[in-house]
Amino acid sequence: MADIIIENGTVLTMDPANEHTLKEGTVVIEDGLIKDISLSTNERADTVIDASGCVVMPGLINTHTHAGMTLLRGYADDMALNQWLEDNIWPVEAQMSDDDIYAGTLLACVEMIKSGTTSFADMYIHVEMVAKAVERSGMRAALSYGMIDFGDSIRADRELEEGKRFVKKWNGSADGRITTMYGPHAPNTCSEELLIRVREQAEHDNVKVHIHVLETEDELNQMKEQYGMCSVNMLDRIGFLDNNILAAHCIWLSGGDIEILRERKVNVSHNPVSNMKLGSGIAPVKELIDKGINVSLGTDGCASNNNLDMFEEMKTATLMQKVSKLDPSLVPADTVLKMGTSNGGRALGIKSGILKKGYNADVIIVDMNKPHLTPLYDPISHIVYSARGSDVRTTIVQGQILMDNYELKFLDENTVMEDARKAAADLIERVDIKRE
Amino acid sequence: MADIIIENGTVLTMDPANEHTLKEGTVVIEDGLIKDISLSTNERADTVIDASGCVVMPGLINTHTHAGMTLLRGYADDMALNQWLEDNIWPVEAQMSDDDIYAGTLLACVEMIKSGTTSFADMYIHVEMVAKAVERSGMRAALSYGMIDFGDSIRADRELEEGKRFVKKWNGSADGRITTMYGPHAPNTCSEELLIRVREQAEHDNVKVHIHVLETEDELNQMKEQYGMCSVNMLDRIGFLDNNILAAHCIWLSGGDIEILRERKVNVSHNPVSNMKLGSGIAPVKELIDKGINVSLGTDGCASNNNLDMFEEMKTATLMQKVSKLDPSLVPADTVLKMGTSNGGRALGIKSGILKKGYNADVIIVDMNKPHLTPLYDPISHIVYSARGSDVRTTIVQGQILMDNYELKFLDENTVMEDARKAAADLIERVDIKRE
Repeated sequence: MADIIIENGTVLTMDPANEHTLKEGTVVIEDGLIKDISLSTNERADTVIDASGCVVMPGLINTHTHAGMTLLRGYADDMALNQWLEDNIWPVEAQMSDDDIYAGTLLACVEMIKSGTTSFADMYIHVEMVAKAVERSGMRAALSYGMIDFGDSIRADRELEEGKRFVKKWNGSADGRITTMYGPHAPNTCSEELLIRVREQAEHDNVKVHIHVLETEDELNQMKEQYGMCSVNMLDRIGFLDNNILAAHCIWLSGGDIEILRERKVNVSHNPVSNMKLGSGIAPVKELIDKGINVSLGTDGCASNNNLDMFEEMKTATLMQKVSKLDPSLVPADTVLKMGTSNGGRALGIKSGILKKGYNADVIIVDMNKPHLTPLYDPISHIVYSARGSDVRTTIVQGQILMDNYELKFLDENTVMEDARKAAADLIERVDIKRE
Repeated sequence: MADIIIENGTVLTMDPANEHTLKEGTVVIEDGLIKDISLSTNERADTVIDASGCVVMPGLINTHTHAGMTLLRGYADDMALNQWLEDNIWPVEAQMSDDDIYAGTLLACVEMIKSGTTSFADMYIHVEMVAKAVERSGMRAALSYGMIDFGDSIRADRELEEGKRFVKKWNGSADGRITTMYGPHAPNTCSEELLIRVREQAEHDNVKVHIHVLETEDELNQMKEQYGMCSVNMLDRIGFLDNNILAAHCIWLSGGDIEILRERKVNVSHNPVSNMKLGSGIAPVKELIDKGINVSLGTDGCASNNNLDMFEEMKTATLMQKVSKLDPSLVPADTVLKMGTSNGGRALGIKSGILKKGYNADVIIVDMNKPHLTPLYDPISHIVYSARGSDVRTTIVQGQILMDNYELKFLDENTVMEDARKAAADLIERVDIKRE
């Protein structure tokens, strides 16, 4: 007897080896995995979900965020990057407590579950609490402690120790839902020495590495000044780059950089909404995809977005490419849907993002019976161009139903929101006192 | 006794003469108008709405759409503009019947009511049916028949007659909810003669004019070839431009064009999502605003968006400006919220888009008690950067509650969707038969 059968829905498998769209398909889930995808089944299950009029698809995979930053949602907008970061974000982050991060991350998980995201890659501080919130939420995540040394070798030792401790304690925990990565913040905030040590340690521990690369023109200029070369060249010179690297942003790339990323099989996480909101620039996504580079999508933190809706991210990703080249055919809907699902699974090294026998049962059901999704010619078009996170009816991670019929099953939404509100208010009060 | 009192909400008046944000304000509605905005009231009303934890604000105003195109939502994406328009959109529009337009427009109205839009400016065909759908829906709209003559004087006569008949019959109808405009399609699809006659007729009838201007580089090139000057110069030469003109798109403007638009007090409707999706280009919104030009927002038709969510339009508008200039401070949240509300009211010449005594009671209530809107520092930030159409709980037009607690009061959503699905299926079948 299976655990869950989802029937009568239009199934988007995202499996390159299979037919992409099954009209009235059936998804069978057992022991946290997909057991079968077919047009009909003889299986029986404890739970049978009727997905008539719905799209059944892999849960969305957010490959770059800082979940605890939900506490700073809308705290500071519409200002220059330095003013935003140095005068607003960093002073608040310096005051954040374990409890704050727990409350903020749990709020992020609730938002993600409700908008159809089943996995995310996080880089942040107080990361023990991030892991505890993910464990509690039922989500899948690839977590990393964000390391910064600014060239200070004592700080580098401490940061690497913290990163190692976290990987050792949490990798593979929560029934395998939590994996860990090393998170050196960026090539211009970490010393070359730290980056080399991180790389060795990651290989030793057999985990991946999550890093910001060329998010801003400032980083490009700093790197040229310090190293006489850009971030990608410097990282390549120290042997940092391979297919275990998840490089977020990658906006200020030269043609040569793109060639290196391709050769080294680096995974790129594109964050269009944040890149637009912070005025960071337009990543050469079309060129990256044309080279066969694995490009996935991230929302970045809530302070620069200001939500975690991956549907919005998918739409914005293709719109930005189209307008930047004045070509509406670029990055079509099926390509961007891969970026939001299967490419994300590949980047994080998890068997998610595809509905296929043996893969994780990370599945969402999107209700298409809505005015803004009517009429329906092509489900992929609607998922990318017309739907939003609030159209997700059911969210399943590792075979566990986290939300059904728009209602969370294991978390009390109002309590999570109230805890986050209190944490945010206390946090800002502490920051304001500090400032006086 | 008043009709409706909305109490305990955070009121965003958008009134430049008043304090913008009232915490726990009260809105009193009587006879379709705002009777009072205050911190508390002694008034009593038949209906009292508790807006605790919500934002109360003017309904959003969509100043450029083709509502009937909901039937083509997702029918053709990701292709070059000519292929999209000439091979896909026009052949289908040629087969559209009165009933199709009615079904499609009513679906658009349902979508707009559910996502917080209370007024819209439409330019389309079978416009009699557009008016009937708007009348039925309870929405407010400024409607126009889209005229095209391609230089054919017999066709010009016929088009102008149709436009005149429509204005005469419908202007001021549906208790004043329907106003009319003349809708010459664009400077490169209408002859100079037709444009001159339209302008005279509009002045005679005391109605405004809705026109596409410089949506594409192709238009710019065609105009230069035909007239030796761009669209704005040509329109100005024939005395077409003044503050009764609603010019949609205005992407390919020179500095001189912007100066002319400013001098003539032309209203510009910016359509960022459509402009991105069709790869049309980035309108110089920052420059237009800096010149004091009235810029409002439109979704354009559903075939190039593919929804009518004005929250998405507001966010995209500011994001596109920020990234295009690499400056995150451009077009801040309060500016873009004016574009979505008060600027739209001004463009359409209706007393909507501001909550103020004597203005139309076109009001929406946005539920902020959601994970993706938590915590709340600044309601304007959340409305622009975090919210989406599905957060609108209540929609009121001319003092009539069209949606309350997420449920439509006068239209049956399922019937409207089913009628639109049937109309779309029959329409595409006719098109396919024609093609064979």
